[in-house]
Amino acid sequence: MKPAVVIQTDFGYGGGSAMRGVIKTLDPEVYVYEANHRVEKFNVVKAARSLNHLVGYWPAGTVFVSVVDPGVGTSRRASVALLKNGSYVVSPDNGSLTLLLENPGIEAVRVIDETVNRLKGTEKVSIFHGRDLFAYCAGKLAAGLIGFEGVGEEYPVSEIVKYEKLNYTSKPGEVRGYVTDMMYTFGNLETNIPIEAAENAGIVPGDKVLVSIKNKDRFVLSHTIPFHPSFGWVPEGEEVIYNSSDGVLGLGINRGDFIRKYNIGFGKDWQIIITKEEQ
Amino acid sequence: MKPAVVIQTDFGYGGGSAMRGVIKTLDPEVYVYEANHRVEKFNVVKAARSLNHLVGYWPAGTVFVSVVDPGVGTSRRASVALLKNGSYVVSPDNGSLTLLLENPGIEAVRVIDETVNRLKGTEKVSIFHGRDLFAYCAGKLAAGLIGFEGVGEEYPVSEIVKYEKLNYTSKPGEVRGYVTDMMYTFGNLETNIPIEAAENAGIVPGDKVLVSIKNKDRFVLSHTIPFHPSFGWVPEGEEVIYNSSDGVLGLGINRGDFIRKYNIGFGKDWQIIITKEEQ
Amino acid sequence: MKPAVVIQTDFGYGGGSAMRGVIKTLDPEVYVYEANHRVEKFNVVKAARSLNHLVGYWPAGTVFVSVVDPGVGTSRRASVALLKNGSYVVSPDNGSLTLLLENPGIEAVRVIDETVNRLKGTEKVSIFHGRDLFAYCAGKLAAGLIGFEGVGEEYPVSEIVKYEKLNYTSKPGEVRGYVTDMMYTFGNLETNIPIEAAENAGIVPGDKVLVSIKNKDRFVLSHTIPFHPSFGWVPEGEEVIYNSSDGVLGLGINRGDFIRKYNIGFGKDWQIIITKEEQ
Repeated sequence: MKPAVVIQTDFGYGGGSAMRGVIKTLDPEVYVYEANHRVEKFNVVKAARSLNHLVGYWPAGTVFVSVVDPGVGTSRRASVALLKNGSYVVSPDNGSLTLLLENPGIEAVRVIDETVNRLKGTEKVSIFHGRDLFAYCAGKLAAGLIGFEGVGEEYPVSEIVKYEKLNYTSKPGEVRGYVTDMMYTFGNLETNIPIEAAENAGIVPGDKVLVSIKNKDRFVLSHTIPFHPSFGWVPEGEEVIYNSSDGVLGLGINRGDFIRKYNIGFGKDWQIIITKEEQ
Repeated sequence: MKPAVVIQTDFGYGGGSAMRGVIKTLDPEVYVYEANHRVEKFNVVKAARSLNHLVGYWPAGTVFVSVVDPGVGTSRRASVALLKNGSYVVSPDNGSLTLLLENPGIEAVRVIDETVNRLKGTEKVSIFHGRDLFAYCAGKLAAGLIGFEGVGEEYPVSEIVKYEKLNYTSKPGEVRGYVTDMMYTFGNLETNIPIEAAENAGIVPGDKVLVSIKNKDRFVLSHTIPFHPSFGWVPEGEEVIYNSSDGVLGLGINRGDFIRKYNIGFGKDWQIIITKEEQ
Repeated sequence: MKPAVVIQTDFGYGGGSAMRGVIKTLDPEVYVYEANHRVEKFNVVKAARSLNHLVGYWPAGTVFVSVVDPGVGTSRRASVALLKNGSYVVSPDNGSLTLLLENPGIEAVRVIDETVNRLKGTEKVSIFHGRDLFAYCAGKLAAGLIGFEGVGEEYPVSEIVKYEKLNYTSKPGEVRGYVTDMMYTFGNLETNIPIEAAENAGIVPGDKVLVSIKNKDRFVLSHTIPFHPSFGWVPEGEEVIYNSSDGVLGLGINRGDFIRKYNIGFGKDWQIIITKEEQ
């Protein structure tokens, strides 16, 4: 069975349907799955996080396509990365590959050769590489029409564009990090603090913790919140800190909207400090 | 050919893509269809209605996954129901299965044994049973890696959690029921009054009927509306009552928005009374 | 391998899932792709443009279903068109087929015979032809249960309902046309001016052009904008005119929202005039 192509974009739903057709035209036996068309517009950090989340849950050999590409049509590289788990990622090399460098690791990377791996008839179009270059090249790879060497010239993994990652710190009774993601549907946020870092600090489910969130120098909130396995452990409307589905600390309100309640944002201006309280 | 897995959630689009990957990793030959990621958040009545609508339109043997799960991580059962038509429904047992008890009927139900049917490495995560438990178990069933007995221990069908259903009444010239669903895209509403109940009351397409909608004790509207097969039978902007696609009476405006025009809600506080007018 | 069914509707996401089930019940080996459920509600011009865009990117023999059907349940024809490239389009004959007449051309058209190509048990439902008639008939075609002759009676291609198309004009140094589409996610607009018409007028990437947009008689904007291959060629926040992915001139702001900035609409009341400036 041929590997699947799994797509994420920032096009919104309904926006990238020609991409699938391009792939099915190359080979109707390649299956195409749309993972997510709602990556935040132009946000390569979100693209990287979403990719990083996805690649672990699909079989080795899957061809991922990620199109969050504010520099489309300019000189950023259009690339294919071979991951250490055997899957491929077809994406602009604009920071979207940052987190894959660590996990699962990138074995090699090649720039897409437009002279052979571009959809014929689109040579004059520069704004839709998602269809004309990324989907087309991914389809050729998944269909077996080209191997990895057929993508184009290799370049050093060390040249892959990285954005600056936010760090977390951990000491007994305290972890510090940043709000790094928002689950808008449910109004929850995610931090960059791994659950293991909290455990190492002695912070575990069942604890009460002092949570402080700072927007630059201003404290947006600073109060006690219980740490539980999930929302339903607190009454409706109450706040809870928990182990998110990505292995980091998350923060939400049972059937409520934490993000909108406190008008939280994310990124380097949104620090979070979690301190274990005396029992 | 292996049965498909058909998914509905309240995650919003873009939210559940790891679920598909988990299934494809178990067996790339199992196809996964996303029926609906926009079930109303936390609303098990909507989950039940949507499931009930779906199961009749897919082949026997299909494995449905429904994740509307406000109690995720608490003690509600995570279950698999075997339907009388041979299909399966993997869902929290929290009311989502209510309507399936009547149609097509539930043959047997089992609780998912987390010790064998949970995705390895997610033991510490309690907020994403959609991926770690429901999708994983559904994938194993569809792939034939387990049979129904392999899900976990059986429990009596009579223990399945039910929400209290709203009733309708019918007498010559009059039917009474409730607004039970909203089609927000088109601004139409659905009632719980079967088209057969209207027919039994002598109310048929071509009739003019007096429609009264009450929010608790307040009449929101009470006026004459024609009963026709579809929207296009009345001029643009005019109201019409019709046979909805689910076999119940529906109410809308041709190319307009009935729900927003009258600020209609749904549920037990929204009664509807339909009376045949003298011809 | 059986041809795929590719669906577009104006139902919104989550709205048409029974359509897929109907097809899979006919034949689980027919694959169903949802191209777009966000065609603008009731807008047959948009349906036509979206179809026209899609059909060129899928293999010959694909069965497209388009359900933008404000007249559902009335006397408009429910039809299947055989395209000159060998694909099929199942759609209400309400203008949605207009652009296919020119490209790739329509070989023949038949009206769906409801007595044989309607889902059993839905005879009393008139509002959901998407499921009961279009998806069902498309599924039968894709599964090979009927051939094109099995759809129903043929009628002359000349009787296909057309909407009045907007024209463009071209003379040395100037092209005139209309704003005909909006990419809301990115805030860009598309015109009906083919890139070749611009080239024939001597307007090419690298030029500066005077762009005037008129809403009826009022000028909404009239100033110089550079013509480049893509957004990234201008600084963030700057306007740019480019070759859209559909082979026509498009207009946007690099990482901004042109549509909302100027409150632009589309259609016959929104004329656009583009004049080459002296270099």
